[in-house]
Amino acid sequence: MALISRTTRGVYAIAPTPFLPDGAVDLESLRRLVDFYVDAGVDGLTLLGQMGEAPKLTHAEAVEIVATVLARTDLPVVVGVSAPGFSSMKALTDEVMALGAAGVMIGPPHTLRTDDQIVGYYSAAGQALGADVPIVVQDYPLTFSVVMSVPVLARIARETPSVVMLKHEDWPGLEKISALRAAQAAEEAPRLSILCGNGGLFLDLEMRRGADGAMTGYCFPELLVDVVALAAEGRAGEAHDLFDAHLPLIRYEQQPGTGLAVRKHILMRRGLLRSDTQRSPQRSLSPDERAEIDLLLNRLSHHDERARLP
Amino acid sequence: MALISRTTRGVYAIAPTPFLPDGAVDLESLRRLVDFYVDAGVDGLTLLGQMGEAPKLTHAEAVEIVATVLARTDLPVVVGVSAPGFSSMKALTDEVMALGAAGVMIGPPHTLRTDDQIVGYYSAAGQALGADVPIVVQDYPLTFSVVMSVPVLARIARETPSVVMLKHEDWPGLEKISALRAAQAAEEAPRLSILCGNGGLFLDLEMRRGADGAMTGYCFPELLVDVVALAAEGRAGEAHDLFDAHLPLIRYEQQPGTGLAVRKHILMRRGLLRSDTQRSPQRSLSPDERAEIDLLLNRLSHHDERARLP
Amino acid sequence: MALISRTTRGVYAIAPTPFLPDGAVDLESLRRLVDFYVDAGVDGLTLLGQMGEAPKLTHAEAVEIVATVLARTDLPVVVGVSAPGFSSMKALTDEVMALGAAGVMIGPPHTLRTDDQIVGYYSAAGQALGADVPIVVQDYPLTFSVVMSVPVLARIARETPSVVMLKHEDWPGLEKISALRAAQAAEEAPRLSILCGNGGLFLDLEMRRGADGAMTGYCFPELLVDVVALAAEGRAGEAHDLFDAHLPLIRYEQQPGTGLAVRKHILMRRGLLRSDTQRSPQRSLSPDERAEIDLLLNRLSHHDERARLP
Amino acid sequence: MALISRTTRGVYAIAPTPFLPDGAVDLESLRRLVDFYVDAGVDGLTLLGQMGEAPKLTHAEAVEIVATVLARTDLPVVVGVSAPGFSSMKALTDEVMALGAAGVMIGPPHTLRTDDQIVGYYSAAGQALGADVPIVVQDYPLTFSVVMSVPVLARIARETPSVVMLKHEDWPGLEKISALRAAQAAEEAPRLSILCGNGGLFLDLEMRRGADGAMTGYCFPELLVDVVALAAEGRAGEAHDLFDAHLPLIRYEQQPGTGLAVRKHILMRRGLLRSDTQRSPQRSLSPDERAEIDLLLNRLSHHDERARLP
Repeated sequence: MALISRTTRGVYAIAPTPFLPDGAVDLESLRRLVDFYVDAGVDGLTLLGQMGEAPKLTHAEAVEIVATVLARTDLPVVVGVSAPGFSSMKALTDEVMALGAAGVMIGPPHTLRTDDQIVGYYSAAGQALGADVPIVVQDYPLTFSVVMSVPVLARIARETPSVVMLKHEDWPGLEKISALRAAQAAEEAPRLSILCGNGGLFLDLEMRRGADGAMTGYCFPELLVDVVALAAEGRAGEAHDLFDAHLPLIRYEQQPGTGLAVRKHILMRRGLLRSDTQRSPQRSLSPDERAEIDLLLNRLSHHDERARLP
Repeated sequence: MALISRTTRGVYAIAPTPFLPDGAVDLESLRRLVDFYVDAGVDGLTLLGQMGEAPKLTHAEAVEIVATVLARTDLPVVVGVSAPGFSSMKALTDEVMALGAAGVMIGPPHTLRTDDQIVGYYSAAGQALGADVPIVVQDYPLTFSVVMSVPVLARIARETPSVVMLKHEDWPGLEKISALRAAQAAEEAPRLSILCGNGGLFLDLEMRRGADGAMTGYCFPELLVDVVALAAEGRAGEAHDLFDAHLPLIRYEQQPGTGLAVRKHILMRRGLLRSDTQRSPQRSLSPDERAEIDLLLNRLSHHDERARLP
Repeated sequence: MALISRTTRGVYAIAPTPFLPDGAVDLESLRRLVDFYVDAGVDGLTLLGQMGEAPKLTHAEAVEIVATVLARTDLPVVVGVSAPGFSSMKALTDEVMALGAAGVMIGPPHTLRTDDQIVGYYSAAGQALGADVPIVVQDYPLTFSVVMSVPVLARIARETPSVVMLKHEDWPGLEKISALRAAQAAEEAPRLSILCGNGGLFLDLEMRRGADGAMTGYCFPELLVDVVALAAEGRAGEAHDLFDAHLPLIRYEQQPGTGLAVRKHILMRRGLLRSDTQRSPQRSLSPDERAEIDLLLNRLSHHDERARLP
Repeated sequence: MALISRTTRGVYAIAPTPFLPDGAVDLESLRRLVDFYVDAGVDGLTLLGQMGEAPKLTHAEAVEIVATVLARTDLPVVVGVSAPGFSSMKALTDEVMALGAAGVMIGPPHTLRTDDQIVGYYSAAGQALGADVPIVVQDYPLTFSVVMSVPVLARIARETPSVVMLKHEDWPGLEKISALRAAQAAEEAPRLSILCGNGGLFLDLEMRRGADGAMTGYCFPELLVDVVALAAEGRAGEAHDLFDAHLPLIRYEQQPGTGLAVRKHILMRRGLLRSDTQRSPQRSLSPDERAEIDLLLNRLSHHDERARLP
């Protein structure tokens, strides 16, 4: 199975974990979701991230989800393995890599503060997991409260060769992409693959800055695929027109805490999930929120037929 | 001079503080800015907020800025007076109220955590400032790290009658507006005026939820005025069309830390500020950022002529 | 097996998890440690807390540790079951309660902020675990960043009857004990058992305020037992004399991050642990630190023979 | 007037700001306090720190306090000038240096996170204030939420020559002192004067690690003077005996938030302050707390006559 590398490009869709109303993992919906992402043209999948409700799964469930997806598709699959201790992180990593995963994603513990602490953490993680396991660094200060400067990311890339990709969701983050590419051009730092998150909120501009694509879970992954493809083809105007039409909904889905409920609701309405259930502790949508989603979908559908949902 | 009250509505523009390149306060630009806001049709002004660089001003400069604005316009003016101790807060409040301010705005110290601490703080502030000074509570967790629940806001409104307005910038915050209006309808809490911030990022939906208007500093205050007016007239479709055209720029300006630089840059290009200087510590725009602003303004100008800038 | 209740008193020693130098769980040392705690006269044990390196254990290891301890002693055993999701919390709880645990301890997720969020979290946890599982609320703002006011704790005690005990380690925290006891006396809140943590740093005064005892892992649990017993017998002067002799070491052991290394080092020197190994990420002692521990032990041994270690 | 330098040693007492019950600054008590510190044998004074309630003073009051102290003593005086913007920091600095202050102390804004941000902040502050103003860096993560690693402090010392002193109150912090001294010995960083805070809680051990003395406000500055002197004379045993006798009270006074109330209360009982008033927002002592202080003073007085207070 192919592994991710420092030159990986494209769209990695972050898949939610489907649950039935009683809280059981819904593997049937998961398979349908995988087929949908393949049809949408994504380049890879990411499982068991924050939005995949990973911390609410048992170890056995986590492994079963990865196995189910890998049995369904040949796409490269990145698996979130963040854990407070390296022994459980290593255990999950070994299992999913043996199943055929393309790499693992690690968010920093929220107690890290100084540059040395952050660099040291990824160095220790790299040693614990072994040099042959590609690692994605998740740079998401709003959630993890850990701020990674450009020099820190450059040091991580130099000192831990198995770190191959940055899941970029610092905010603001545009200058960071440019600075990383400049460091790379100046040979001060090795190239990293940069896939952008934050629900896609700045994807139009991130591609101009030198990002390699997106890794996020927006409920219309087709939009991410189109924007990345149009940018790659130099059709910037079309990319912006399409992106701007989706921006009101992207903004809505990107609200912290609320986002996953919106995402699961729309994926259910798209016929992919049987239920929009989240495991507890969870957050469900109010009638006002459902009406707002209807409004935003309706307005979007005038620009993008795919948003015309039942 | 009229004071703000629990039924105040409309758009309160947050004015930046203009500086000359050498860092001196630029009163000429400030007067021009006031005239511009008046022409744009705003209902009031807010001075010396976070975006007004208030912490970087001496006491004397702060008072001079307020005096200059109040000498120029009859619009109601809210003044930010947040301070670590009540004695300096009281000193500034007394001066600006004597000059004719319509009320003061207070953000919470970032050390407050529990419900009782927050309610107690505003109660003590109300007592320190006196019952006749209308107070705006600034609810901005992303900046202040203080989370105010709906019951807390209801308690503040009940226990401190001089608190008349909520500057709403929790995120996500739509449900909070509905919950406050429901508490008011159930007579569990007095009515508060709710003006929304966050750069306007959710203004389209906030008006549907029962907000009374906007209090923010977006570089096109005309947009805020139009959206609030169209909403009030029930012309929701037009409001959304106009809002959506501005959303790519609103999103861009709302980036933490970067936003004020964007705002001052555009206000300078609109001919209002002589310089986009911020006082140190500051953040200036990169060439990439200026190019992005050009792109966003250019795309916006196809929908809104006012965005066609030199 | 007896369960903890709202009238539980005494000393619950927090046991570290012994590891061999290769990182394997050292059950032989664990059994020796249990015998030592029994001989020291503690009233109960707490397993799998922060200081038990719980997040670094696999589920199977956690269960094995609890089973080993419960097979060795009839003392009541509280088990830390904090987890991001209720399904894994419930799974571990069910297993350890079936094995004979006396109750479970739950620390709050660090994202909780408002009173309602905190009360709601423990209510949901109580429902998820079932009414017959006694719960200890861990109130440790320095580590969890969650501040629980007295009204919040009173609400939790009223609304979730299965919450029977407070592990008290707010800092400062003396007034909180008095306020909880006053609320109880005024029948505004049910009685909770209050066992104090913080390494014992304020145990001399906490007992005067109405605490029921200690739940902490100080490397001389005999001191905790003596102070609680002397306080119960009204021999305050002796309690203070003994406590003060230990205070320089208590203070040293209570340093965040460093404390567990100090504790394991001394328990190893006391012949209880075969190794002071922590699982990665970990913190080992410098030569300076070992010299400081020698100095503090040597000085202490002039007052307390038990501190004369090889 | 002598300036502080990278070789400054001894005890700098942090003076509280005395207020009368009506909140007015009490200059008479301030003068008495200065005489007391001189008699106690301190080597310098620090004004307008966190414990000096600096944020609750107007600019004019702050300057008057500094002028009053400098008119009363020839001891070197360090003045806290932390401010959100460099213009007000510069204004206060210029005034107090002109009055004869020995240097200024600057705590970091709580928004700084990365190494570069912290180093850059002190570099900008040094430039703003001018090369001839000696600066004390306040390293107090518990209050400021800014973590300064040893490499960061070494960079600050290298890049900003006017930074001459570290007010050390990281916790745990012993290893940091040793690491800074090792960096200095290896010529990787210039020497900094290191004076330790944290209420003196680790002063016994800090002196062994290579600290130059103390800068803190413990209510018995004589103890700080004695411990530093005994350590300098190699009379370590006596230093420990005296320190240990004070430790129960030191620990009590060092409780966050409560500490200043304890300190002012004891200084009032020592006949130095006319009132223990703090400016609002404030924290007063409960009857329980006053009884605890009585108990601790009484026990201490058996070892140190100076603690026998009316």
